[in-house]
Amino acid sequence: MSLAPDFQDWSREVAGRVEAALERLLPSPRVAPGRLHDAMRYSTLGGGKRVRAMLVFAAGEVSGADPERLDVAASAVEMIHAYSLIHDDLPCMDDDVLRRGKPTCHVEFDEATALLAGDALQSLAFQLLAEHRLAAAAEGQLRMIQLFAAACGSRGMAGGQAIDLDSTGKGLTLPELERMHILKTGALIRASVLLGGHCGGLAAPELEHLDRYAKNVGLAFQVVDDILDEEGSAATLGKTAGKDRAAGKTTYTTLMELADARRFARELLDRATGALDAFGDRAGRLREIAGFIVHRER
Amino acid sequence: MSLAPDFQDWSREVAGRVEAALERLLPSPRVAPGRLHDAMRYSTLGGGKRVRAMLVFAAGEVSGADPERLDVAASAVEMIHAYSLIHDDLPCMDDDVLRRGKPTCHVEFDEATALLAGDALQSLAFQLLAEHRLAAAAEGQLRMIQLFAAACGSRGMAGGQAIDLDSTGKGLTLPELERMHILKTGALIRASVLLGGHCGGLAAPELEHLDRYAKNVGLAFQVVDDILDEEGSAATLGKTAGKDRAAGKTTYTTLMELADARRFARELLDRATGALDAFGDRAGRLREIAGFIVHRER
Repeated sequence: MSLAPDFQDWSREVAGRVEAALERLLPSPRVAPGRLHDAMRYSTLGGGKRVRAMLVFAAGEVSGADPERLDVAASAVEMIHAYSLIHDDLPCMDDDVLRRGKPTCHVEFDEATALLAGDALQSLAFQLLAEHRLAAAAEGQLRMIQLFAAACGSRGMAGGQAIDLDSTGKGLTLPELERMHILKTGALIRASVLLGGHCGGLAAPELEHLDRYAKNVGLAFQVVDDILDEEGSAATLGKTAGKDRAAGKTTYTTLMELADARRFARELLDRATGALDAFGDRAGRLREIAGFIVHRER
Repeated sequence: MSLAPDFQDWSREVAGRVEAALERLLPSPRVAPGRLHDAMRYSTLGGGKRVRAMLVFAAGEVSGADPERLDVAASAVEMIHAYSLIHDDLPCMDDDVLRRGKPTCHVEFDEATALLAGDALQSLAFQLLAEHRLAAAAEGQLRMIQLFAAACGSRGMAGGQAIDLDSTGKGLTLPELERMHILKTGALIRASVLLGGHCGGLAAPELEHLDRYAKNVGLAFQVVDDILDEEGSAATLGKTAGKDRAAGKTTYTTLMELADARRFARELLDRATGALDAFGDRAGRLREIAGFIVHRER
C-alpha cells in the first residue's frame, strides 16, 4: 500500500509530540527511586509504532480537541500499553527477552524492577488523567477515567491476557479467539479512540461511531499481527517470530488459511472506515490509520 | 492495652461493611474470566485487619461523610492493598507462600494469574473512584483520584517497594529507612485518611491535620510491624516470621534496641493523636485506631 507522504509526516509528527510529552510526564531518573524511574522510561520512551497515540490524535481531529489535552491522553494510553508489555514479557507470562528490538525490561533490569515499573506506570497513567484538564466539565473527565479503567481491568486488557493464558494449548474457536482479542488488545484501542473523542467533547451518537470504528480496527490489528507472526522473521518484527504457534496458541492463522485471514482483515478495514461516514473529511486520519494497521509490514 | 469494647464493636462493624462492599464491587467469579475473578476475590475478601478501611471510616467520621461514599473509598484502598500484597509475595519479590494464614495468590493459583489479578485490582480501584459519586463537586473527586494515584505510584507505594528491594543486603540509615516506609506503607495509609476526609468535604487546613496524623500513624504501623516480626512466630503473624532479618533487610529492630523501637512507636502515637486536637470528639475513632496500631499483637 502506498500511504500519502502526508500521512507519514503526520504520524512522525504525532510520534514526536508523544515522545516529548512522555519525556516530560515520566518521572526523572534523577528523582528517587532512580532505578525504577529508569526502568519506566526504558520501556516507554523511544520505541513502538505509537499506534494508540496516533488513534488518540486522529480521534482528536474528529472532535476538534486541544492538542495539549491529546498529549496527556496519548501519554496515558502509551504508559498503559508499555506496562502491559513489561508484564506480558515476564518469565511467568510470555517469557520474552526481546521487545522492539532491545532487551525486555526484566532482562535489562531485573524481574522485580520490571514488575514494579509496570505497576507504577499504571498508577501514573491514572494520575495524569486526573490532574490535567481534559474535558470542559470535570464530570466528563470522570467518565473518561471510568472508561479508561474499565478498558485496563479484568473485563478489559488484563482479562484478555488471562483468557489468552488459560487458552494456551487448549485451542479456541473463532468466536472465543475474537472475544479474547476484543479484550486483550481491542479494549485499549477503543479507549484510545474514545479518549480522543472525549477530549474535544463529542456527543454520545458520535462516540458510538468512533466506538464501532475502534472495535473493527482493534480486531484488524490483531488479525494482521497473527499474519505477520506467521510470515515474519525476528529481524522484521523485532520480536521472536512464530512464537505463538510454537507455544500452542490459537491464532487467526491457525484457524484460517493465510489468504482467508488477509481477506478477513480487509473486511474489518471496510467496516471500520464505514463507521466514519458521518464525519466526512474530519476522519481522514482515522481512515489512514486503519489502512496503515491492515497494510503494515511489521 | 485495653480497648473500649465499643471500639471492638465498631471495628467489627467496619470490617463487615467493607467485606460486604467488596463482595458487591468485585467482579463475580461467574463472569469471564472466572479464574482471574476468583484470584482477585481470593486475595481481597475475608482477610486482613482492614486497618486502611478503618482509617477511611474514622476519617469519614471527622468529615461527616455519607457511609456509602466511604464504602467505595475503603474498597478502593483495600483493593490496592490486596494488589500490593499479591505482587509483593511473588517469587521475584519476597517469595512468600503464606499470607493471612493461607497460601499466597500465586501458590493458590499460579504466578501469571496472580500478576494479572494484582494488575486488574489496581484498575478496578480507579474505576470505582471514577464511577461512584464521592464528593459534592466532580472537581473534588478528580483531586481524590489524583492523590490516590500519586500514593500508589513510583513516588508512593510502588517506589517504596523499589527502595526496599534495592536496599536488601545493603543496610540503610535510620532516615533512609524512614523514607522507604513513608512511601511503602505510609503513602496508602495517608491516602486512606485523606480520602475519608475528602468524602465529607473537609477544607484544606483540616486535611493538613489529618495528613500529619496519618504520616505518624503510618510510620508507627511499620515500627510495630518490625517489632512484631522480630518477636513473633508464624502462628501469631500468619506469615513467615523473622524473615526480614534473615533476608538481610534493615528494619527498626536491626537499627534500634527493641525497647527503643517500642519507645519510638509510642512517640509516634503521641504525635499522631496530637495532630487531632482541633477535631475534638469527632476524631475519637482515629485516636483509637492509632492506639490499636501501636498496641496490636499481630
